[in-house]
Amino acid sequence: MALAEFELIRQYFNIDALTFERTGIVLGPGDDCALLDIPKGYNLALSVDTLNEGVHFPAGADAYQLAQRCLRVNLSDLAAMGAEPLGFTLALSLPDVSESWLQGFSQGLSACAGNYRCSLLGGDTTRGPLAITIQVHGLVAAGQALRRSGASVGDAIYVTGTLGNAALALPYLTHQSGYELADLSAEQRGFLQVAFYQPEPRVDAGLALTGLASAAIDVSDGLASDLGHILQASGSGSGSDSDMAALGAIIDTAQIPLAAEFAGLAAAHDALPLALGGGDDYELCVTVPPQHEAQAQAAMKALNLRFSRIGEVIAGSGIMLRDANGESQPMRLSGYRHFGGGDNE
Amino acid sequence: MALAEFELIRQYFNIDALTFERTGIVLGPGDDCALLDIPKGYNLALSVDTLNEGVHFPAGADAYQLAQRCLRVNLSDLAAMGAEPLGFTLALSLPDVSESWLQGFSQGLSACAGNYRCSLLGGDTTRGPLAITIQVHGLVAAGQALRRSGASVGDAIYVTGTLGNAALALPYLTHQSGYELADLSAEQRGFLQVAFYQPEPRVDAGLALTGLASAAIDVSDGLASDLGHILQASGSGSGSDSDMAALGAIIDTAQIPLAAEFAGLAAAHDALPLALGGGDDYELCVTVPPQHEAQAQAAMKALNLRFSRIGEVIAGSGIMLRDANGESQPMRLSGYRHFGGGDNE
Repeated sequence: MALAEFELIRQYFNIDALTFERTGIVLGPGDDCALLDIPKGYNLALSVDTLNEGVHFPAGADAYQLAQRCLRVNLSDLAAMGAEPLGFTLALSLPDVSESWLQGFSQGLSACAGNYRCSLLGGDTTRGPLAITIQVHGLVAAGQALRRSGASVGDAIYVTGTLGNAALALPYLTHQSGYELADLSAEQRGFLQVAFYQPEPRVDAGLALTGLASAAIDVSDGLASDLGHILQASGSGSGSDSDMAALGAIIDTAQIPLAAEFAGLAAAHDALPLALGGGDDYELCVTVPPQHEAQAQAAMKALNLRFSRIGEVIAGSGIMLRDANGESQPMRLSGYRHFGGGDNE
Repeated sequence: MALAEFELIRQYFNIDALTFERTGIVLGPGDDCALLDIPKGYNLALSVDTLNEGVHFPAGADAYQLAQRCLRVNLSDLAAMGAEPLGFTLALSLPDVSESWLQGFSQGLSACAGNYRCSLLGGDTTRGPLAITIQVHGLVAAGQALRRSGASVGDAIYVTGTLGNAALALPYLTHQSGYELADLSAEQRGFLQVAFYQPEPRVDAGLALTGLASAAIDVSDGLASDLGHILQASGSGSGSDSDMAALGAIIDTAQIPLAAEFAGLAAAHDALPLALGGGDDYELCVTVPPQHEAQAQAAMKALNLRFSRIGEVIAGSGIMLRDANGESQPMRLSGYRHFGGGDNE
């Protein structure tokens, strides 16, 4: 039976819909290692993320949706680096082998992988509590990667898309008291499902912003927390250079981009905390030097992507919130952080 | 508290003992992605493995030993490809945060990483049942990787080291009835501990065998099973070329290399099944064309590594066992295979 299970798994992952002819991939799944040949003038960008049942997604989540979310969340790290997706590995722990689950997961994975021509390079399937670890690999021109550490005083702060949607979705999708999906319209339910399970990795935006943005991060822990990572990595908070000044930010709360569907669902007093503190949106937060703003805006317009100037990098430390009347106060929100804090990347 | 846990984890993994200056590593942990610059003329080899508590290692395993095993098992995949270790990522799921556990794990990881100058590139730490996923990355001269698919009729079959030790250790280390560690000498206990937790990835051997061996694999599922992978990938069983002949092997059972400590512990009727069918030894099994045998033997002798000629690749299919009297019969062993079968690489 173990052998039959193995063959079943192989059947759902060794498929053409998951492997693509790509320059750079010398050898895909099936040997002790995969082999990559990185084109001259390029660096390989790589990032790994684990999603555990009951921690990063609700128990019993639909396999197709789950696969989508897992790969998209990882591709977002490539986007934040300005890298083009090349391939991914999949380490999958399964409590048991269900053919319908495997079929759904494989189809969800294929749909997303095909969209980015991101090829399965290899993997490992084991018995264990449901957990999905994906490592993505992408190409970025040498010296062009968007790091967290390039922001300076006076740079504008932008975000792509809209914020807070995934954080709004979470209590509904985990059936928390007072949040009944059944009370919503079909459109609202669809909006929340997509917000949580199908966040759009901003790959094209990241590629277009290389050479324009001074720093970038994807919003996984919440804007406040992730912008804080940029400020810390770019300023003296990084501890790497005592000549560097501490960096802070001022955010214009009226400029925080909210989806119309979000505004229709979030209570007024919840909107700003969700948009600033909620995680899992996977939009890009970038800093742009003044001389590149017009070009960056034009590039995002060409992608038909909302691109909101929400504030500026300032000398000092911490994040200030400025309201529509021009009055400022220190932000008292903290980013969403699941147990143990995630990334040590 | 979550934040405190996060900082605690960071403290044990963001350490100099885990990151090394290496040509090829442009950016290590701390950003959305790590960045690699692969030297001209080289390919990047990569492989991922997950180890789950209660499946791949006993519950309550010592953290130092466990870290050693996890990284060594992964490095073995690089060895089997003839690649030199460069760096690794670590995706760690922890049910809770214990400082003593983190300290032990970090020290075990550092000891092994330092030995191979294999640098931590990034990772992800999450709450969940104890699981460790490591992806290793190594360099191999373009076109020189040892694949599973190069064996031909008449090639000799060799294995490094000795076989069966880890399979012998397992029932002792999991406290199975009739296998009492307390009944053994300190030397015997040490032998079994090392066999299971500190298998030696044959990195130097893999590097030395590039250009000499026609195919290679590391013995993770058992010699019978892993040699079968070579025969299948190299022969018509791979389905990739209808002109290729099916390949089989003949194994001289008297030539199977056994450790003296193994022979002293294994019951006579168990020795051969353990050595041929038992997994987790992480020795290399390679095929060598006749014209390269002398050079391959000399290379292994220079490494002071036991290198046993155990048989030959033959036309046909399946594995035949030939005893000391020259009598042959089809092998009826099957390789150890944990649930779901492991690798789809």
